[in-house]
Amino acid sequence: MTEGGVTAAQGFEAAGVEAAIKYENRKDMAIVYSRVPCRAAGVFTSNVVKAAPVLWDREVVAHSPYVQAAVVNTGIANAATGRQGYAYCRQTAEKTAELLGIPVDAVLVGSTGVIGNQLPIERILAGVEKLAAAKTDTAAAASDAAEAIMTTDTVSKQAAVQFEIGGRTVTVGGMSKGAGMIHPNMCTMLGFITTDIAISRELLQEALREDVADTFNMISVDGDTSTNDTLVVLANGLAGNPEITEKNEDYDRFRQALNCVNTALAKKMAGDGEGATALFETKVIHAATKQDARRLSRSVISSNLCKAAIYGHDANFGRFLCALGYAGVDFDPEKIELYFESGEKSMLIYRDGAAVDYSEEEATAILSSPEVRVLVDMHMGDAEAAAWGCDLSYDYVKINADYRS
Amino acid sequence: MTEGGVTAAQGFEAAGVEAAIKYENRKDMAIVYSRVPCRAAGVFTSNVVKAAPVLWDREVVAHSPYVQAAVVNTGIANAATGRQGYAYCRQTAEKTAELLGIPVDAVLVGSTGVIGNQLPIERILAGVEKLAAAKTDTAAAASDAAEAIMTTDTVSKQAAVQFEIGGRTVTVGGMSKGAGMIHPNMCTMLGFITTDIAISRELLQEALREDVADTFNMISVDGDTSTNDTLVVLANGLAGNPEITEKNEDYDRFRQALNCVNTALAKKMAGDGEGATALFETKVIHAATKQDARRLSRSVISSNLCKAAIYGHDANFGRFLCALGYAGVDFDPEKIELYFESGEKSMLIYRDGAAVDYSEEEATAILSSPEVRVLVDMHMGDAEAAAWGCDLSYDYVKINADYRS
Repeated sequence: MTEGGVTAAQGFEAAGVEAAIKYENRKDMAIVYSRVPCRAAGVFTSNVVKAAPVLWDREVVAHSPYVQAAVVNTGIANAATGRQGYAYCRQTAEKTAELLGIPVDAVLVGSTGVIGNQLPIERILAGVEKLAAAKTDTAAAASDAAEAIMTTDTVSKQAAVQFEIGGRTVTVGGMSKGAGMIHPNMCTMLGFITTDIAISRELLQEALREDVADTFNMISVDGDTSTNDTLVVLANGLAGNPEITEKNEDYDRFRQALNCVNTALAKKMAGDGEGATALFETKVIHAATKQDARRLSRSVISSNLCKAAIYGHDANFGRFLCALGYAGVDFDPEKIELYFESGEKSMLIYRDGAAVDYSEEEATAILSSPEVRVLVDMHMGDAEAAAWGCDLSYDYVKINADYRS
Repeated sequence: MTEGGVTAAQGFEAAGVEAAIKYENRKDMAIVYSRVPCRAAGVFTSNVVKAAPVLWDREVVAHSPYVQAAVVNTGIANAATGRQGYAYCRQTAEKTAELLGIPVDAVLVGSTGVIGNQLPIERILAGVEKLAAAKTDTAAAASDAAEAIMTTDTVSKQAAVQFEIGGRTVTVGGMSKGAGMIHPNMCTMLGFITTDIAISRELLQEALREDVADTFNMISVDGDTSTNDTLVVLANGLAGNPEITEKNEDYDRFRQALNCVNTALAKKMAGDGEGATALFETKVIHAATKQDARRLSRSVISSNLCKAAIYGHDANFGRFLCALGYAGVDFDPEKIELYFESGEKSMLIYRDGAAVDYSEEEATAILSSPEVRVLVDMHMGDAEAAAWGCDLSYDYVKINADYRS
């Protein structure tokens, strides 16, 4: 891993500005811009109720010859806003295109916040003007952008990684935001990945699609799949590597780098879930199939009762077994083993269909750390998967009982 | 509806006693007994990790010639307890059979509480002795039994109804308990229905199976399908009606009565979910299929974000649309309508793809009542369904972060 975010790769600029969309005195609009045209790939929410920018971006990713900018607002999601909402989305893209001198279909739009309210379009357009004037290629600009896309997030999320292809340095950087309505199904709330790699459009989309299944689709904060989930990757080719057009070693290296950035961002989102006091990982090993491993691990980190037990540092392992049991995967409860882990510490809790004689005190100590892992050995095959969530705290309820006011 | 619970029907006795299974000074064991043999039907959890009494009861319902008693303990669930746990379950049935002078395979066993601990079998057997001595056919005895099966429930749940078949009065009564790990899939946590109707075993099971899909399977407190879910109905035939052996008018009348009792119990469980301050109903009308209506309504009442909005009395209708959108049912968001309702009050909130011009103040007033209903008109067909849950409060977290201590 290296420092930086969406401006880490060559040729990318960014900015984050205050536009007073919902609150004063906080950054709430961001831009990501490439000096040269990019190939774009994207994955979007599977929710039937799709936000206007999701409808817009899907078209752009599918049909535009290239993409060169993404503009984002927080505060209002522009979802459940009808034709008016779509018109505002288009106006945002038009204004951006005009100021940057690029085609309107080269502009992606992202929105996040309250569902059902219309955008204050004048403030959005004023925000776009600020963004167009402010964008630069510094690390500070990437940080500003990552900060500007936050809603209930408590920290901004960036990640970047570098590797070599044929003597040329390639960089992949990104930013994302949570922190509630996070149960991605096709991808996550908002994520923007930039890279200077040269790669064909088809393989860029393929790499993203493959990777999301093990990263953003394996996190959950509250089980609610958002109307706005959007993850896009922009590749501008400035690294100068021979263009990747087949699944060769170079492609594998890119996949690895993308996985590295996506995993880092996904874990940051899970650990910063609304009200979270801990990152709660579940790793399932020796499952019969990859699909089983994913289902089992996701089921545990999605369970309210498991999440509350983590919050209470309570080694109530029966809840973890229960969540495995309703995951939709068949197994013999007598055959599996369950461990509580943190860092290097690992503690066997359950084997042969019943609890082993473990120390409650030590178990509580493990469950009190800021990163808790439940390891489940299925003893059925060779597949494994990890999923990431967070604990369920009073603050989750507080944040969401009073979100709009 | 009439007064009473499991002793409302002729020939049934009950008791609830203190056995100090987990706490002193509270009723924690119950019995339901019929003076004559009963036909039994049951539905059980779909969780792969099944509690010992679930394994036991499944066998009894499937293979025993008749059933005459059910004995229940709270405090410990006897799940994830291996062979030892199953042996304790069998011992409980054996002791009950011996004291009541009935075959061991005429005894059902129910357990609820912490998963993973072994039963204190000596106290259980002492409790069975107390129960066998205490059982009577009074309404007070039914109330004691309903109280004794509570865990984190704040009120006990009973319901009964009477109707006539061929001049003979038939009674259906029941009791159930919640209040967490409630997301039934085949049926609910623990429910016992008694009736004096004469009906064939096949039709009794059929009636239960059909009815559960619209009652207990339509409630959720926290999305966690328990290891112990059990719902049984005992029919002893003492009403003296001509035995029901086909799906005729009499069968329909019984179905209606069973639905009445099950719906009442299911709603009581939802409204008394852990930490709940309100019963939260979602009714979906004009859906394309019954299955769609069920999925849509269940998705809304299961959503943490919708539940937190109800707790906050916040008319954040976008969350309800979002939960409809990820239910796995295809629809056009522009075509549906959404209303907030309470008692006779009904308020249109969303139509034609966007919010209507509603009063936030009035909406908040509706959402502040103890029974809140969200009505969704899909405008797609003739199917409808209702689902029941509760709000998500600080107390849910409190109860579950510290359940075992």
